[in-house]
Amino acid sequence: MNSHFQLDNPNLGKEDILYHIGLTAKDDLQSMFQDVKFVCMGGKPSRMQKFAAYLDDKLGKPKTSRREKGELLDISGSAGRYSMYKAGPVLSVSHGIGQASLSVVLNEVLKLLHYAKCNKDVIFIRIGSSGGLGVEPGTLVITDQPYNSTLEPVFLHISLGRSIPRPCSTCPDTRRELLNCSKNLGIPAVIGNTMATDDFFEGQCRLDGAFCDYSDEDKMNFLKRANQELGVKNIEMESTCFSAMCNRANVKSAVICSALLNRLQQDVVDATVQDMDKWQQQSFEVVAAFISNTVNDNVVS
Amino acid sequence: MNSHFQLDNPNLGKEDILYHIGLTAKDDLQSMFQDVKFVCMGGKPSRMQKFAAYLDDKLGKPKTSRREKGELLDISGSAGRYSMYKAGPVLSVSHGIGQASLSVVLNEVLKLLHYAKCNKDVIFIRIGSSGGLGVEPGTLVITDQPYNSTLEPVFLHISLGRSIPRPCSTCPDTRRELLNCSKNLGIPAVIGNTMATDDFFEGQCRLDGAFCDYSDEDKMNFLKRANQELGVKNIEMESTCFSAMCNRANVKSAVICSALLNRLQQDVVDATVQDMDKWQQQSFEVVAAFISNTVNDNVVS
Repeated sequence: MNSHFQLDNPNLGKEDILYHIGLTAKDDLQSMFQDVKFVCMGGKPSRMQKFAAYLDDKLGKPKTSRREKGELLDISGSAGRYSMYKAGPVLSVSHGIGQASLSVVLNEVLKLLHYAKCNKDVIFIRIGSSGGLGVEPGTLVITDQPYNSTLEPVFLHISLGRSIPRPCSTCPDTRRELLNCSKNLGIPAVIGNTMATDDFFEGQCRLDGAFCDYSDEDKMNFLKRANQELGVKNIEMESTCFSAMCNRANVKSAVICSALLNRLQQDVVDATVQDMDKWQQQSFEVVAAFISNTVNDNVVS
Repeated sequence: MNSHFQLDNPNLGKEDILYHIGLTAKDDLQSMFQDVKFVCMGGKPSRMQKFAAYLDDKLGKPKTSRREKGELLDISGSAGRYSMYKAGPVLSVSHGIGQASLSVVLNEVLKLLHYAKCNKDVIFIRIGSSGGLGVEPGTLVITDQPYNSTLEPVFLHISLGRSIPRPCSTCPDTRRELLNCSKNLGIPAVIGNTMATDDFFEGQCRLDGAFCDYSDEDKMNFLKRANQELGVKNIEMESTCFSAMCNRANVKSAVICSALLNRLQQDVVDATVQDMDKWQQQSFEVVAAFISNTVNDNVVS
């Protein structure tokens, strides 16, 4: 029962400065974070603040939430890079746009859990927005296999000048449970594969970036190939790195993203702000239901 | 004299939504932005806010700065992703961490200048922080040739599923002028090559990330090779993408970064906050001097 999350890097130690999240290994991380059981991440700071506030209400404003003057505290605000909130057993953390930005904060959050001696069964969930492929706008896409931008099921990680294909997969139980929660709430959701790119425009075959040297036909051929041959149902910018790093750290991961548009039909999001707010709220509800169920199951078992 | 900045993507048009910077092509971008002559970018929103405020004071609070209740307005704040300020002829824009995050906002800023019919000689300058290689902490490194994380002088750009090596180079006149401005101000600066990585920890050969499967000797061999064989004097996460996109758009670019530590000696920044604030301020002074000189030269010539 004392088993806790550990990284196997022997160089980690008490002097460590978690530079980009505004904490150090000398802080009393154990008393601050040992109860963390879920890490939820998403691009926008405001989304992760809203999710934390929603969850905090849902959990009855638990004493374990970190607050300042009654409000949830942005634990990482002082570092000026990312936002991090704690609502009961959940960390809600922004990761910015793209795999490089994500990898910085995910490295530091993993080290934080290591120093805090968290339970080894912490679950990581990315809650994002994406472009759908062949799904209705507003559908939640729960990632099965992430693919990179050349349609390989790996994260190409460059370490010490070497390019290393790192396997990336999401947790089957978690994605099934997220789908069940969506169904129970009557929220449209599918499980499908996801393509992660490092470029929002040309990497995702948009015609309307600053540059474009391919035709509409080239674009449609690529998107249809991804969708029909590989079952890719949405495109975003983080899922390969996110799942590969979680795999490597031996933590479960899931990715659930609203599809803001159907990229087989258009390049530009034309949903209303109200629609996008509703879809974001639906993703919160599904993840919150998953968290409640998981916490309750663990209490029973 | 009517020549202005143009992108050659024929798909650009009036309906375009600059989604991540909170503007659309239907806004009166020409009256809002046509006078822009410099785009300065950096990772942290707070840095770019401070730079804009410094420059605005320096320029005597020009009428062309965009304000709300007397304060400089965060033009892109509503989109919740990046910050953008306008001080006279200068846009000061945050790009987050990493090339993917940068590429999203740089695509949209280039489109903004295109729609605004800005002067074709707009200069792009990235003002950042970095790890130095063989230079004293506090030194400003002005980038000559950017290298990617496998030490090739290109940006590997994935477009429509194809990996394309894009040439990346900075403007010789601009980097020379930046060095002159540093000398005139008595601020330590060097011109050198820069390595841009997609990973702050293993990509930059740190031993203290969440993971590490190489030795201190491996690390030192790689860093020394970069420094001694290729003249790399600092490491950051954006210069290849930044210069490659500027090259492609036919705009001049420069990268000037404070070296916060000497990576041949240590992995962790241990400079004081006061030192880091001073070094950031010095980078502002050098770029502001460059901007003043360039504006004055153009008025004379």
